[in-house]
Amino acid sequence: MNRQYTKMKALYHAVRDAIHDGNLVYGEKLPSTRELAASYHISRGTVNQVYDTLTAQGYLQSEHGRGTFVAYQADLSHEEYQVKSCTHHLSAWGNRIQQLEQQTAQQTAQARDHSKENSEVIDFSKYQPDLSKFPYDEWNNRLYAEIRHREENVIHASASVSSTGDPKLREAIAAYLRRMRGIHVDADHIAVTAGSMQAIALLTQLLADPGDHVVTESPCYVGISQAIMAAGAKLIEANLDGQGLVPQNWDARMLFVTPSRQFPTGEMLSLERRQTLLDWAHRRDAMIVEDDYDSEFRYRGMHVEPLKTLDKEGRVIYLGSFTKTLPFEVRLGYVVLPPTLADTFRKAQALYEPRPVNLIEQRALAAFMTSGQYERHLRRMNRLYSRKFHMLLKLLNQQLSTWFDWVENEAGLHVFGWWRGMPSAYEAFRASARSQGVHYSEVSSSTSDGIKVGIYLSFAHLSDAQIQEGVARLQKAVMD
Amino acid sequence: MNRQYTKMKALYHAVRDAIHDGNLVYGEKLPSTRELAASYHISRGTVNQVYDTLTAQGYLQSEHGRGTFVAYQADLSHEEYQVKSCTHHLSAWGNRIQQLEQQTAQQTAQARDHSKENSEVIDFSKYQPDLSKFPYDEWNNRLYAEIRHREENVIHASASVSSTGDPKLREAIAAYLRRMRGIHVDADHIAVTAGSMQAIALLTQLLADPGDHVVTESPCYVGISQAIMAAGAKLIEANLDGQGLVPQNWDARMLFVTPSRQFPTGEMLSLERRQTLLDWAHRRDAMIVEDDYDSEFRYRGMHVEPLKTLDKEGRVIYLGSFTKTLPFEVRLGYVVLPPTLADTFRKAQALYEPRPVNLIEQRALAAFMTSGQYERHLRRMNRLYSRKFHMLLKLLNQQLSTWFDWVENEAGLHVFGWWRGMPSAYEAFRASARSQGVHYSEVSSSTSDGIKVGIYLSFAHLSDAQIQEGVARLQKAVMD
Repeated sequence: MNRQYTKMKALYHAVRDAIHDGNLVYGEKLPSTRELAASYHISRGTVNQVYDTLTAQGYLQSEHGRGTFVAYQADLSHEEYQVKSCTHHLSAWGNRIQQLEQQTAQQTAQARDHSKENSEVIDFSKYQPDLSKFPYDEWNNRLYAEIRHREENVIHASASVSSTGDPKLREAIAAYLRRMRGIHVDADHIAVTAGSMQAIALLTQLLADPGDHVVTESPCYVGISQAIMAAGAKLIEANLDGQGLVPQNWDARMLFVTPSRQFPTGEMLSLERRQTLLDWAHRRDAMIVEDDYDSEFRYRGMHVEPLKTLDKEGRVIYLGSFTKTLPFEVRLGYVVLPPTLADTFRKAQALYEPRPVNLIEQRALAAFMTSGQYERHLRRMNRLYSRKFHMLLKLLNQQLSTWFDWVENEAGLHVFGWWRGMPSAYEAFRASARSQGVHYSEVSSSTSDGIKVGIYLSFAHLSDAQIQEGVARLQKAVMD
Repeated sequence: MNRQYTKMKALYHAVRDAIHDGNLVYGEKLPSTRELAASYHISRGTVNQVYDTLTAQGYLQSEHGRGTFVAYQADLSHEEYQVKSCTHHLSAWGNRIQQLEQQTAQQTAQARDHSKENSEVIDFSKYQPDLSKFPYDEWNNRLYAEIRHREENVIHASASVSSTGDPKLREAIAAYLRRMRGIHVDADHIAVTAGSMQAIALLTQLLADPGDHVVTESPCYVGISQAIMAAGAKLIEANLDGQGLVPQNWDARMLFVTPSRQFPTGEMLSLERRQTLLDWAHRRDAMIVEDDYDSEFRYRGMHVEPLKTLDKEGRVIYLGSFTKTLPFEVRLGYVVLPPTLADTFRKAQALYEPRPVNLIEQRALAAFMTSGQYERHLRRMNRLYSRKFHMLLKLLNQQLSTWFDWVENEAGLHVFGWWRGMPSAYEAFRASARSQGVHYSEVSSSTSDGIKVGIYLSFAHLSDAQIQEGVARLQKAVMD
């Protein structure tokens, strides 16, 4: 700011601090504006502005013809609680959020741990696409175009873009779902979300009260169990048996399920069980959330049609995501809503974000999809990942089939294996793998066969050489 | 996709639909792969893939040496609920969200109404900056640079960017707050949010249980009352009396307040009352959310220091926003958190968005601020808005002071006036203003003098000529 402003600010703070510190006391008369202007080498107008501001704030009081006086009594007793910082009373929701600490802290610690270690670590635990093959030029040009044309779009945008996302992107997603997944949906019933977590958390809040039961697969994505905990609902863990989760007549409000390819075990849910789940939802007046987290990549056979395509009643909510196919910083997902829930979801989303937060990226993605660039990219990546997948699976079956039972579902960006041996032997393997410099993800789960432990290896971001080296180290670890 | 894939898909659907429709019944034997390949002019391998997929999904069953059979019993009774769409059981939160309908629908209807009308309408109801003077070239170059350098940043970003935002942007905001608002805060205690609504909604959820009392000013920003309703808390409406809200010894968990310039009346909260609010929060173990929604613009005198600067205890949460200063599509705000609440807020934000959704814009803004471009832009806009503000206020005082009592707080992007006359006369004015083609925002409020109605005029986005024409129409409307 300019010099006059700086002087004004200095004078303001000088007077204010003097009052706060008790150097100018209640009722004391201040110098006239003329005197102060002369001693501070500033204009009388500036002094007047400072006095006016301090008067408006209640520090000073002006009495016509008598001058300006201190009107504020410094309460030095407030100092007594200066140092201590209060502990806040949190809502029940706030307390539950606070208790999510352990997991989040653990994840952070692990992430930090990774970044510290040397580049020689082979890290199968990162769930990231191979960005070295991403068509950045095409994508960047879409972004640049949206930025350049922003001004033309502003009026349109300010009038019509609701929290559920850019209309063109919702149209492009609807077309993609029709063509690639067999889901026939109106763009009005699609909401664009921040990755899939926003949808998972909002849906749980909308459908489950504290104390209600919500079913998840065991094991499942940690974000789902966090959302259920945050809502105060009770988790029912459904067992897996190789054909996906085992349906039961749960007394529950909602169910999270990954039918195309169970996360993380890779099991595919049979058609019969799909129908059983729909019947259950009908009987129980419950909702099913289908998380189709990486259906873009399949290396053999048909894409499995989503559970959503069997849903006649509007009981299935379908989640998709672009986080496995677009650059790291693009946090976009979507949810296909039953028409009766679309408006309520829109309002829930609007409570936190009345307008889309990443409109430029949403529009760039709409153009990227409509032009066919997105599907071309998927096909290219499918070939690349297929090669990596088969190489990894072959190596694992050759070198590690004695210790792990690798699931042969030919899709997605990771390979899952159940530990065949004793739990105590697994502990030794884990320690040894760490020391070999190979990281992976791990789950333990109650199955129909009791507590089992499994590991999964994300391979998309690794080179062929890294994959080979990683498996070699895992083999060394079991041999230890 | 390629032709082989299209044929495979066609066959898959033909078989699947035949089973669903009952044309292929349970136990029926399917043609051999050889027969089907010949009649469909496709390879046997393709037919095998289709059979494998349908088998995996449970539609078919293969018996070694005997052939392939239908394994699925089409349950045509499911058709009975095909047409009706279920009504979903919602949580208590979901029901409250659904009840927000009226307000949201109203706002949308109004927005549509605007867009339909001809361009001759003078619209004082849009709360938008004057984007015709925005330095788009500078800003776009910052965006382009972040997009180009994304690849270098990815590793760093994926390791360390938490849900609370880009570290450089949080540093830049901390520096801005120190320099311009007198708030000394560590960047770790700042969270970048989606506008200010995300902060308002999350904080209410974190601090207020259903049934708890939360104080707001009357009138206040509609988003605040929506967040309180969504949390199931009870609203206490605090009166205004020309010096901002009148403190009382409320039995409440939290208070929302706009001390610098009450929204929308423009009243400034006196220092004495600020101290009274802090004492109240101390006594009641309550939290105060200070929404500093447009403090960037002040046309005379000093910027008023925020309530936060008086907070010794960590009871004040300070909200700021960039939506009044950056282009429409940039939805960025921030919240200054007491250290004891920072971690819990981060977890609450991460539940919905584990990573920042608009990282490129966050980084562009960090560079825009650090380089001084942001403050230069603010100074330029301050001069421009100052001229518009004084012109509007002068016109209103000349032409409409008989009917409205215009508040003279010399700051912000709107001018507020209380209606001086009878409520019935106001109804006639409102109808007349509509027919004159001039829109504005309106609030009614219980004050210490009873129910009063007021209007406010946002002027930033209007040209001088539009402002003059708008006031002329308002005058015609009162003369009617």
